[in-house]
Amino acid sequence: MIIVMKAHATDADVEAVIGMVEALDYRAHVIRGVERTVVACVGEERGEAHSLQHLESVSGVERVMPVLRSFKLASREVRPEGSIVEVGGVPIGGKRLTVIAGPCAVESRAQVDAAALAVTQAGAHLLRGGAYKPRTSPYSFQGMEDEGLRLLEDAGRRNHIPVVTEIMDATDIDLVAEHADMLQVGARNAQNFSLLRRLGKVRKPILLKRGMSTRLEEFLMAAEYILSEGNPNVVLCERGIRTFETATRNTLDLNAVPLLKQWTHLPVIVDPSHGTGIWSLVTPMALASIAAGADGLLIEVHPQPAAALSDGPQQLRPARFMQLMAALKPVAHALGREL
Amino acid sequence: MIIVMKAHATDADVEAVIGMVEALDYRAHVIRGVERTVVACVGEERGEAHSLQHLESVSGVERVMPVLRSFKLASREVRPEGSIVEVGGVPIGGKRLTVIAGPCAVESRAQVDAAALAVTQAGAHLLRGGAYKPRTSPYSFQGMEDEGLRLLEDAGRRNHIPVVTEIMDATDIDLVAEHADMLQVGARNAQNFSLLRRLGKVRKPILLKRGMSTRLEEFLMAAEYILSEGNPNVVLCERGIRTFETATRNTLDLNAVPLLKQWTHLPVIVDPSHGTGIWSLVTPMALASIAAGADGLLIEVHPQPAAALSDGPQQLRPARFMQLMAALKPVAHALGREL
Amino acid sequence: MIIVMKAHATDADVEAVIGMVEALDYRAHVIRGVERTVVACVGEERGEAHSLQHLESVSGVERVMPVLRSFKLASREVRPEGSIVEVGGVPIGGKRLTVIAGPCAVESRAQVDAAALAVTQAGAHLLRGGAYKPRTSPYSFQGMEDEGLRLLEDAGRRNHIPVVTEIMDATDIDLVAEHADMLQVGARNAQNFSLLRRLGKVRKPILLKRGMSTRLEEFLMAAEYILSEGNPNVVLCERGIRTFETATRNTLDLNAVPLLKQWTHLPVIVDPSHGTGIWSLVTPMALASIAAGADGLLIEVHPQPAAALSDGPQQLRPARFMQLMAALKPVAHALGREL
Amino acid sequence: MIIVMKAHATDADVEAVIGMVEALDYRAHVIRGVERTVVACVGEERGEAHSLQHLESVSGVERVMPVLRSFKLASREVRPEGSIVEVGGVPIGGKRLTVIAGPCAVESRAQVDAAALAVTQAGAHLLRGGAYKPRTSPYSFQGMEDEGLRLLEDAGRRNHIPVVTEIMDATDIDLVAEHADMLQVGARNAQNFSLLRRLGKVRKPILLKRGMSTRLEEFLMAAEYILSEGNPNVVLCERGIRTFETATRNTLDLNAVPLLKQWTHLPVIVDPSHGTGIWSLVTPMALASIAAGADGLLIEVHPQPAAALSDGPQQLRPARFMQLMAALKPVAHALGREL
Repeated sequence: MIIVMKAHATDADVEAVIGMVEALDYRAHVIRGVERTVVACVGEERGEAHSLQHLESVSGVERVMPVLRSFKLASREVRPEGSIVEVGGVPIGGKRLTVIAGPCAVESRAQVDAAALAVTQAGAHLLRGGAYKPRTSPYSFQGMEDEGLRLLEDAGRRNHIPVVTEIMDATDIDLVAEHADMLQVGARNAQNFSLLRRLGKVRKPILLKRGMSTRLEEFLMAAEYILSEGNPNVVLCERGIRTFETATRNTLDLNAVPLLKQWTHLPVIVDPSHGTGIWSLVTPMALASIAAGADGLLIEVHPQPAAALSDGPQQLRPARFMQLMAALKPVAHALGREL
Repeated sequence: MIIVMKAHATDADVEAVIGMVEALDYRAHVIRGVERTVVACVGEERGEAHSLQHLESVSGVERVMPVLRSFKLASREVRPEGSIVEVGGVPIGGKRLTVIAGPCAVESRAQVDAAALAVTQAGAHLLRGGAYKPRTSPYSFQGMEDEGLRLLEDAGRRNHIPVVTEIMDATDIDLVAEHADMLQVGARNAQNFSLLRRLGKVRKPILLKRGMSTRLEEFLMAAEYILSEGNPNVVLCERGIRTFETATRNTLDLNAVPLLKQWTHLPVIVDPSHGTGIWSLVTPMALASIAAGADGLLIEVHPQPAAALSDGPQQLRPARFMQLMAALKPVAHALGREL
Repeated sequence: MIIVMKAHATDADVEAVIGMVEALDYRAHVIRGVERTVVACVGEERGEAHSLQHLESVSGVERVMPVLRSFKLASREVRPEGSIVEVGGVPIGGKRLTVIAGPCAVESRAQVDAAALAVTQAGAHLLRGGAYKPRTSPYSFQGMEDEGLRLLEDAGRRNHIPVVTEIMDATDIDLVAEHADMLQVGARNAQNFSLLRRLGKVRKPILLKRGMSTRLEEFLMAAEYILSEGNPNVVLCERGIRTFETATRNTLDLNAVPLLKQWTHLPVIVDPSHGTGIWSLVTPMALASIAAGADGLLIEVHPQPAAALSDGPQQLRPARFMQLMAALKPVAHALGREL
Repeated sequence: MIIVMKAHATDADVEAVIGMVEALDYRAHVIRGVERTVVACVGEERGEAHSLQHLESVSGVERVMPVLRSFKLASREVRPEGSIVEVGGVPIGGKRLTVIAGPCAVESRAQVDAAALAVTQAGAHLLRGGAYKPRTSPYSFQGMEDEGLRLLEDAGRRNHIPVVTEIMDATDIDLVAEHADMLQVGARNAQNFSLLRRLGKVRKPILLKRGMSTRLEEFLMAAEYILSEGNPNVVLCERGIRTFETATRNTLDLNAVPLLKQWTHLPVIVDPSHGTGIWSLVTPMALASIAAGADGLLIEVHPQPAAALSDGPQQLRPARFMQLMAALKPVAHALGREL
């Protein structure tokens, strides 16, 4: 931690800061520069009960700058070779790409079965489908809930494909963990720390989506909540961030992919369906995601997007998803990945 | 809802859209313009199970534009005179301003008592204090939890001031509602729809903070989740949004104040402590909030900010809070408000 | 400048960095922490031909963190008492507030005369009006150009009020400086460094608007371009930044006002017309701007907003501007300012 | 254009709006819905001197919603097959990818010659190099200006590679057009409409970079300024936008690539050097850009990044650029493109 003193800070100010820093078990090194005095604090910066940030309210202090990024267990340094997370026997991470596909929401037995068959035939590895839906409006379709969960599980079993579904409420964890192979945390819950902490005590792998305005360091801190409670099976998902651009639903931040791969050992996948909000952009952005280094994709596929109860504009119909998978294969090979 | 067809949409495309629209119980008006054909849909646009937005995936459709904002119960039209929400006998809304003040987190009996005494003496109307803290890092101080809740309640009682505290987890609702006069939903849970829905079934008033990247229309839809479950006592709180500017912790969006006052009957208060993140900006931005038309303020006050376990840089010490209250009074009067 | 080495940086890496730093005339202090080694560089950090930022591409370096903000002449330290800029005899800065008002664009002699008369009668101190208009579309009205400039000058003279107009093109500087008392740089040219540098050689005061995505430190660096060429008469104008919020045209960042007043000695005014884009928000946000500590306002006033050739939705009609001025006076007094 | 009336708008309000609309040569269709009345305006929406947007200030009007995007000459509808822009004999657009590479700034004859040789040998098609540099600080290196221009031209000639350089000031246009094969407009000048208009009268092709906070529709309107003055040779360049994320210098918005390709016939290239600001992200994001459908790349290559006078952290050394080109080839082929 580096403490920058104000231009007119007095010696007494500097002494007071040194006293406070040492009271917190850091060693203080004072460097007197041309225009500013700086106090460098040496000690265990991460994991402390007390950060030094609050020293910004102390007389004579201009700013406090942390030296280290704050994630620990998620850090690449911990596991330089990278993690592979298994979901119902399917690995995420490593050389082989993983494609998760299915409808935004489970709407009926017929719909989820048709979707499951279609995505399996096209080569997807995991089936997704929402039973509990976080909708901006309380008047919109909120999902089939428990029944949807069972329909998804059945569709997965019949097609021999593990299933992924979103968890919105901590009280549903046991039920969802019983019926699904992987639990997804949506963007709006990306910093719901109560939920994250409880998911750290679950055995099932977690698909953690980035929040709409979550910085990458904060995203890894959200993962850290799960990891620090004992669940090492976290997969990160970039799904677009909120910016000033309104032509697309979100701005897919593919910079996040290679940067996260440098910072963390956790697998990183991309959701170009939410990341664009427009079905005709999904295939090019899926290819771009893989080219940027993603370990897999999350794609919304619906047997009849124009009749979908949610997110119609961004769901692919099965024939288009098949084309996406066909386009993906040569690009994956050109990049030295397998599909 | 207005459906804009593509430049080269065929008559068959237009007919198909009309058929879909009418199947959903809207009447369709076709307007053939110079460059585009537009289908205007007349019907009950808000509150439907089905939005027409998914028609964007239909052949020949360029875009679907909603005509109405989607909130209903929160709308000013419902209650043009504005709502007043009572918190332990203290009204929020109306001519009189309400100031909520207290420490970011409850840290000890001595600390919360000192804070309660200081803010009461300075003229605050409600005492705030966090017992459960949403922290970016799992390694940071997470609050005193149930014990903190009781310390806050005691401090409030001794100083005859109702108390407000944050609720993070739906399983704590009963406990928190028993000990606090108002339940706060933090920015990170602003779109935690499970939590909002449950708070709609509580008798206690809710202080709903805007999310870091929540648009104003979405903010009102979050309130709508609470209102539509039967709890009419919602107070909105602007607390800064996330933008590219890094000199301040958040960008306080005061435009939100007069705009929300036009759109909704719910009271609107402002939190300049989180909205700036820098104590020396809190007083000017508190004054600006009131000048913009806010019904009250949420101010962080700590007996010793430099020793605070969270958010030290933005908390005011008691003497400065007293100066803030003194500066506020003439401005309130100049605006025709009371304090 | 603080250089943070990577976790696995070798002694040779550290030595190499020290060598580079010393070759650039800085002294290097090495601090070996628990998890990272840090090299603190002491020397003249601002104004160098060479920043140390490029050391981020050197082996073993994780990041380079500047200690100082980079503006010099604009810094409050240079002139702690604050600057007052005179425009045709009217001071901006100091205890007295300054109101600049007038139409977005000069559209005709009758229109600018009506506007000039109205704003003068209401108590405005300077008349604004655009002769050259930066419009998003080349097909929109682009301003009356040279003729508009002369009409503005005439209207100002007849009403004994100095005039402010926007400069878009360096080749117009002499002409505009001849006819106007203050030259405005619009948001889209806030980082047009060629233009800024030339305005640094002009005698007339400059009204510099913040760019739509300009950070405050960059905003002061833009001012620094003008100051460093010899023109000390710069007034800063916050006019809203671009964010994800679409309910308003821009997000007025009033945090900028007290922060800029701390950082710089230059006067700071606010433009709530562009900052909101909605006429009914202009008065509350004008009051808020003053409460936040602004030295003045820039308000768009048009005799007939519904017939305006540009920016109709945000212009006030004269009667409403008069109400704004009336509302402003008691607030100004309550804040210890004069109007 | 669709005009939405307020809930309580009177018949007189609606009549008044119809009168105004018809006075502007639109036909008005009134649609009375369940909760709102809507006036649909039929006429030539684009290219009018007068937009209807200012009707938002009229009594009884809630909002005015444009139906059409506002670009015309840039629209894909004008040239569905797409444009190919020739730069000194090198085509941009079409099946073959174009790579523009070279140093951020021309710093010396030796440096630009080394860079030119390196990028030519690696297979780049055009040489870039800045002679005039837009720097945030007036104290930073501002480029070698006219001398730099000549050094760049010489380096291009000796290596038989056309050259691209940035134009910052309209007064330099003739000089730059004489020495360079393509003129680049930087992000900070993306809405410098005076400059754009003058570049519309030049014969040389223009490389137009997206501004840091320019929406895609506005980006095409900027291109429209050049096109509408008679210069059809515009290449668009996505270079990252400004968002809340601070881990990267900008957020590269690759969604822009497939969306622009749908909206416009102009070629679209990507600059992953500025789009990330970190050299180790340049290669993955270059591959992702091509996978998203870009027609080419703009890559910063410097013989010695650690000694660069600007933007060191994002420039590739020649060996890494060669690796990038090698990695690009199989991906391009997998996508059916040539390199």
